[in-house]
Amino acid sequence: MFYIGVDLGGTKIAVGLVQKDGALIAKKSAKTDAESFAHIMDTIADTIAGLLEENGFSTEDVEGIGIGCPGSVDSRSGVVIYANNIRLDNAPVAQTLRARIGKPVFVSNDANCAALGENVMGGAKGLDNLVLITLGTGVGGGIIIDGKIFDGNNGTGGEPGHSLLRMNGEACTCGRRGCWEAYASATALIRQTKAAIARHPESSMSGDAQVSGRTAFEAAKRGDKAGRAVVARYLRYVAEGIVNMVNIFRPDIVLIGGGISHEGDYILRPIQRFVDRRSYGAAYTTPPRVKLATLGNDAGIIGAAMLCRGK
Amino acid sequence: MFYIGVDLGGTKIAVGLVQKDGALIAKKSAKTDAESFAHIMDTIADTIAGLLEENGFSTEDVEGIGIGCPGSVDSRSGVVIYANNIRLDNAPVAQTLRARIGKPVFVSNDANCAALGENVMGGAKGLDNLVLITLGTGVGGGIIIDGKIFDGNNGTGGEPGHSLLRMNGEACTCGRRGCWEAYASATALIRQTKAAIARHPESSMSGDAQVSGRTAFEAAKRGDKAGRAVVARYLRYVAEGIVNMVNIFRPDIVLIGGGISHEGDYILRPIQRFVDRRSYGAAYTTPPRVKLATLGNDAGIIGAAMLCRGK
Repeated sequence: MFYIGVDLGGTKIAVGLVQKDGALIAKKSAKTDAESFAHIMDTIADTIAGLLEENGFSTEDVEGIGIGCPGSVDSRSGVVIYANNIRLDNAPVAQTLRARIGKPVFVSNDANCAALGENVMGGAKGLDNLVLITLGTGVGGGIIIDGKIFDGNNGTGGEPGHSLLRMNGEACTCGRRGCWEAYASATALIRQTKAAIARHPESSMSGDAQVSGRTAFEAAKRGDKAGRAVVARYLRYVAEGIVNMVNIFRPDIVLIGGGISHEGDYILRPIQRFVDRRSYGAAYTTPPRVKLATLGNDAGIIGAAMLCRGK
Repeated sequence: MFYIGVDLGGTKIAVGLVQKDGALIAKKSAKTDAESFAHIMDTIADTIAGLLEENGFSTEDVEGIGIGCPGSVDSRSGVVIYANNIRLDNAPVAQTLRARIGKPVFVSNDANCAALGENVMGGAKGLDNLVLITLGTGVGGGIIIDGKIFDGNNGTGGEPGHSLLRMNGEACTCGRRGCWEAYASATALIRQTKAAIARHPESSMSGDAQVSGRTAFEAAKRGDKAGRAVVARYLRYVAEGIVNMVNIFRPDIVLIGGGISHEGDYILRPIQRFVDRRSYGAAYTTPPRVKLATLGNDAGIIGAAMLCRGK
């Protein structure tokens, strides 16, 4: 018997056939039609059917289906309350797919699923208390406590990206000012890089036709002063928010995923130094290690599948 | 059979005889000798013995002893790792008292115990997901998830007071800059009040010989402009930190305790307004209610006793 894991993203639906121990056997993906709930449900059902067929299985071989969805998810009812990038307002995902496929369906937030995947098969294997931070378009957070997803009272909380970094600071997409996400996302880094280029026309970054989340890192690595300043400040933003999470959750490990995590050790070392120095009670205890997430996009598929293990 | 609840404070040890349903039957207190671990343990044992005797009971009638301690507590081992105000460094509280009294001993942080007490018998009765914030010398936090204390991986986390309000802001006792505690504690309010008096010698607050956490509130209530500004800003600090907690834990209710909570509705209304407007997804969901803790100092005794129920 297998679990099916589904990672429902804004542009892509990725479906995987997952063993009960978390091993990902095969996967298949399809484009997301972000405008229509019914169409999204059709695509998921069709992609699952296709994946099973390609691998010589049928729904008979499936014990359950887990789905990681963006946005705010009521994990108890399996309803997506709302999502920024996809039309899923009060969308009864679990009920709809269960009626369609006739198997138990479990739903959670995509960042939570990624964290669970990293716990079962990735960078936090064997470490049952972890915080996964994804630095991408936004700052996502997945929290695992004692091997289980913590999603903030049935999925309505669990938003570390929307803790303050600086009250009255940068405007955040959530309507508040000064959230961590507004400083530590790749989107924020691009904004910070553009501002530095405007202030420092002499910087080698001025040549970049298309500023990306890599621009400042590349400039810093070639010794560009403005680039180094952008990176140092950005990593401080990241590290300060991680200390917030450490002071609340004190996980065994903090994992960093998302686009920015490709910078690897270059970002880990300064972040670890800050966490070691500034976490609460750092003089008396050893703060958690900060490492990279290791499963990439597969984390979300594996973790979604693992929702089927039950609570 | 009863539980014994002990609230170990910097100046006072309060011991209570508690029914299994949480009802506090009788209590007794003694002074804390903050300098000596052995003496603290003696005092707790003696006070328990005295309380039992006064009420016609013996240790035979006691099923377990729960102790709420300040500072960082490893709830698994029953060791207080460190505490700011009392000499308890790596203090084996559970082991010592168990050897002394011959009953199971459970230890947790005092703010966690207070939160559990409010859940069992106080302002959050029937609401099993709550965050208790105590606004006193510091900003304490007790978090209950599904009716159980969440103490951040065996007591090493669970420090909402040490989340950022403003990066690089006011110095905090924890060694970091900009923690919520450095803005929203009564200590911080006193500092803010004194600064306002210095800036506004025309304020009616200038007459106060001894500035306290009440000074600005009293001035605001009599229409003093500087006092109103201090209060408005202080309540914003409190509310911003509560929104952080709401975005992470999304509790059923937020309770406010500690000295500042005596201001009652005067503080609740503006805080609730801010929480309703600025919590993540506020447009789609109803943020939790913010209310006053109702048990005062008894919360810690009752909650400590309830530790004996087991996990």
